[in-house]
Amino acid sequence: MKILLVNNPRIESTVVMAARLSAQLADRGIEVLIDSMQKVEVRQGEIDSIIVLGGDGTLIRTVRQYAEQSVPILGVNMGTVGFLSNIKADELDSCLERLLNHDYDTEERMILEVCIYRDEMLQERFFGLNELSIKSRTARMLSMDIHIAGREHGIYRGDGIIIATPTGSTAYSLSCGGPITDPDLEVLLLTPIACYSLSKRPMVINADKEISFYPLRCEEAEITIDGQVNMIWRNDFHIKVKKAQHKLKLINLKPAYFFQTITKRLQLNDDL
Amino acid sequence: MKILLVNNPRIESTVVMAARLSAQLADRGIEVLIDSMQKVEVRQGEIDSIIVLGGDGTLIRTVRQYAEQSVPILGVNMGTVGFLSNIKADELDSCLERLLNHDYDTEERMILEVCIYRDEMLQERFFGLNELSIKSRTARMLSMDIHIAGREHGIYRGDGIIIATPTGSTAYSLSCGGPITDPDLEVLLLTPIACYSLSKRPMVINADKEISFYPLRCEEAEITIDGQVNMIWRNDFHIKVKKAQHKLKLINLKPAYFFQTITKRLQLNDDL
Amino acid sequence: MKILLVNNPRIESTVVMAARLSAQLADRGIEVLIDSMQKVEVRQGEIDSIIVLGGDGTLIRTVRQYAEQSVPILGVNMGTVGFLSNIKADELDSCLERLLNHDYDTEERMILEVCIYRDEMLQERFFGLNELSIKSRTARMLSMDIHIAGREHGIYRGDGIIIATPTGSTAYSLSCGGPITDPDLEVLLLTPIACYSLSKRPMVINADKEISFYPLRCEEAEITIDGQVNMIWRNDFHIKVKKAQHKLKLINLKPAYFFQTITKRLQLNDDL
Amino acid sequence: MKILLVNNPRIESTVVMAARLSAQLADRGIEVLIDSMQKVEVRQGEIDSIIVLGGDGTLIRTVRQYAEQSVPILGVNMGTVGFLSNIKADELDSCLERLLNHDYDTEERMILEVCIYRDEMLQERFFGLNELSIKSRTARMLSMDIHIAGREHGIYRGDGIIIATPTGSTAYSLSCGGPITDPDLEVLLLTPIACYSLSKRPMVINADKEISFYPLRCEEAEITIDGQVNMIWRNDFHIKVKKAQHKLKLINLKPAYFFQTITKRLQLNDDL
Repeated sequence: MKILLVNNPRIESTVVMAARLSAQLADRGIEVLIDSMQKVEVRQGEIDSIIVLGGDGTLIRTVRQYAEQSVPILGVNMGTVGFLSNIKADELDSCLERLLNHDYDTEERMILEVCIYRDEMLQERFFGLNELSIKSRTARMLSMDIHIAGREHGIYRGDGIIIATPTGSTAYSLSCGGPITDPDLEVLLLTPIACYSLSKRPMVINADKEISFYPLRCEEAEITIDGQVNMIWRNDFHIKVKKAQHKLKLINLKPAYFFQTITKRLQLNDDL
Repeated sequence: MKILLVNNPRIESTVVMAARLSAQLADRGIEVLIDSMQKVEVRQGEIDSIIVLGGDGTLIRTVRQYAEQSVPILGVNMGTVGFLSNIKADELDSCLERLLNHDYDTEERMILEVCIYRDEMLQERFFGLNELSIKSRTARMLSMDIHIAGREHGIYRGDGIIIATPTGSTAYSLSCGGPITDPDLEVLLLTPIACYSLSKRPMVINADKEISFYPLRCEEAEITIDGQVNMIWRNDFHIKVKKAQHKLKLINLKPAYFFQTITKRLQLNDDL
Repeated sequence: MKILLVNNPRIESTVVMAARLSAQLADRGIEVLIDSMQKVEVRQGEIDSIIVLGGDGTLIRTVRQYAEQSVPILGVNMGTVGFLSNIKADELDSCLERLLNHDYDTEERMILEVCIYRDEMLQERFFGLNELSIKSRTARMLSMDIHIAGREHGIYRGDGIIIATPTGSTAYSLSCGGPITDPDLEVLLLTPIACYSLSKRPMVINADKEISFYPLRCEEAEITIDGQVNMIWRNDFHIKVKKAQHKLKLINLKPAYFFQTITKRLQLNDDL
Repeated sequence: MKILLVNNPRIESTVVMAARLSAQLADRGIEVLIDSMQKVEVRQGEIDSIIVLGGDGTLIRTVRQYAEQSVPILGVNMGTVGFLSNIKADELDSCLERLLNHDYDTEERMILEVCIYRDEMLQERFFGLNELSIKSRTARMLSMDIHIAGREHGIYRGDGIIIATPTGSTAYSLSCGGPITDPDLEVLLLTPIACYSLSKRPMVINADKEISFYPLRCEEAEITIDGQVNMIWRNDFHIKVKKAQHKLKLINLKPAYFFQTITKRLQLNDDL
């Protein structure tokens, strides 16, 4: 059995925890890989599960880099408010036995697959857990043509557009008026950012449909995935977004009910 | 073969069309039932399909009354703007052959089932195609406790609440800030009406989850389904909403792509 | 010198406080009038100031009934969250001297004047501190024609409309998407309630302009002022709203800065 | 008598019109200055009025550059949709007599004055007719501390903030949820852009109050005025916004009623 530990080297406590935990696991004869900022090369099927020590940012990075491993991931909250982590650092010891015995439920979350094409040639492919945003970097409006499931949907002019997953519905999309969305759904949220036309409104789209973006006027636009990956949107790029083949499998050692906690979490956010 | 014609007796042209069409069908040896405002008793399996002559209002009434028949329904637009009708009156003749031969696609739409309980006893059960709304009839705020999938979600205070289907997402829910929703999804939209708390926002909920409403303060509140059925919400009533077992099966004799037409339809609405 | 005490007979503590305070003032040779739910007839110039014992509801009622007296009003908070009260009950004793010596600042707030006409004949006239709302009592949309400063503005269809003062901007209007407004402005906020057209948006109008409402379809509509006065809107009524000649003069014994406290107050509201 | 003509050299028709009009005016013995992209140095009191040939963009530039001249400005629409122009090109000839005789009404519009300080030293001062925006250029949130009239108001985190005039209320601020505002008011609209906290809402502030912005985290933020002037917001800059001493005096040769035309204009926009 091999476990991957992912931590955030900028948060000291996660470094300490990674060292301590890896010793603990070694004592039990479990092999440990550590990704402390540097992606670890992992063969398909090599690891059993992933433990993420840190906040939502670290878990999001983990999904982007190891989505295709398709193994269960446990989020361990190291102090920051985390929507995705299931247990706190001091609960880890008492839960370790169950983790190693696979004695837990998993909750599946949809992942975005973003493909960037230039003249029909795939340039880049990214996975995202929260959202893709395409935004103007300047005060000039972006203008883009959007197709849904291969058919023309319409032209959007404004600051830009967000395509969010249900997991991302409580992040950037919410700030732009998008709906809070049940994390067990497979939908894409299309949320306009400061759209010029008042009849362009947030939309919920079946994630079986692919959404394509063709630039019309986008002199200085930026593509961002989960707030972590950035690329300039060139005039000859187009973008296709769909649900990824793999899901995030969140390990739930404690039960978690989205609609029971969401109101409180949003109010907490407000105080930050 | 037996076909049910539904029309709206207040629109003369639908009465004329119903008479003409029923003669045409009789000539072909097809039995015809006519519902012109008065529900017709139909045995399960008795009818082959339903033709609705009129606007969305008539089709919505048809769904409420014949949902359990679970037969394909063709909406024929008789002049008004109809989101749900597939062909215009003057296209009916040329399409009749295909209709009778079942040479068409159907598009499924989720239906709401609303159950109203008093002291745990079922009082009434309704089907809805667009939405359930629970609203104060006065200037006093309603206050209600909402449970989702059997778990406490939170207390809503304000003018009221809407539970919409994807089909209803472009109707009342949209006016209250709810998202435009892909009609092929099975989701429930919970859209607050003038909510006191700014952190209560529109939500998209997997329609496999049942939503329950318990009154806290609702002196003069009204339950409305599809804008057509009204009931007073008494203090000892509670309401459960879920997706109905049956779907609306819309007959598409011409292809219809929701995301291709929605922007134009909303702009047209604006001019009305 | 004569002072009017206004209290809320349903809140015991305000009754007790009114009795105690009136004895205290009598000892100093000050005449006291008490309005405990029942409007007191007061001649113009007869009273020096008004002390309101209670929450915002009681102060709002005081404004409606005594606006034309145009005397300074002190709000004393008796336990509930009050946006308009300046001091708490236990601060009253230490402030009494300054109150009687007129040793305070006053803050002026605009008041609404709502006139209801039937066939050009004035039927009723009301003062309001927060807002006028015109709302459908049923699931059917209202439809009305709105004129601003004597010129046609447009037709609104939906649940209804709010005309709020700056003071009312943090109440019902806010729940419907209206802006938070500086209380020292003289503006009228026109905030649509669940408007059918997406291009109808909240508006800020110079309060020197009169706004008129003509019913187009309003079978069961209700006119409400400050959530306290209700009337049925008949098809032959029209309504004119303008700023009242008199202002509310709020006594500030302690400095109060609206923009310093508004964010915290709204977050507190959220928890209620 | 001396008149300044301002045109947009990128629109050929405005160049032709400027030449033709300047000949016409010279024939009547009127001196003409032409600003075709290049600011003309004008002494205070030197010019009588300004004629702007072009769309809103050209008029906005004119205001920024000649606000302190404080002379009446006529907007002549040369084909594009213009909210600020009063007559069309082909109406100019018939109106010229009245223009030269000052036989017209003027409508005053508030202008913004934006001062950018570094360590309490004024670095730059700009005039704006529509709005100031402060925005993140990247996917990272901005964070800033806002003071109103010298008192702490609160911390805003998100994509950024807009301060709009009433004239700018139908432009960028509207796309971000700000209210449509009567152009004869003297107010500042504070409209958050994709704010993290749901209780931060659009605000209307008396323009007698100065608003200050202090950066907390603004690594790559941009200050933009009227979409035309850009500056990087450095960590040691702070910004003060207030109403300018001078007003825009729009010449109305034909009557113009804002609330009569606004709904139609917004619907037209939608189609663009």
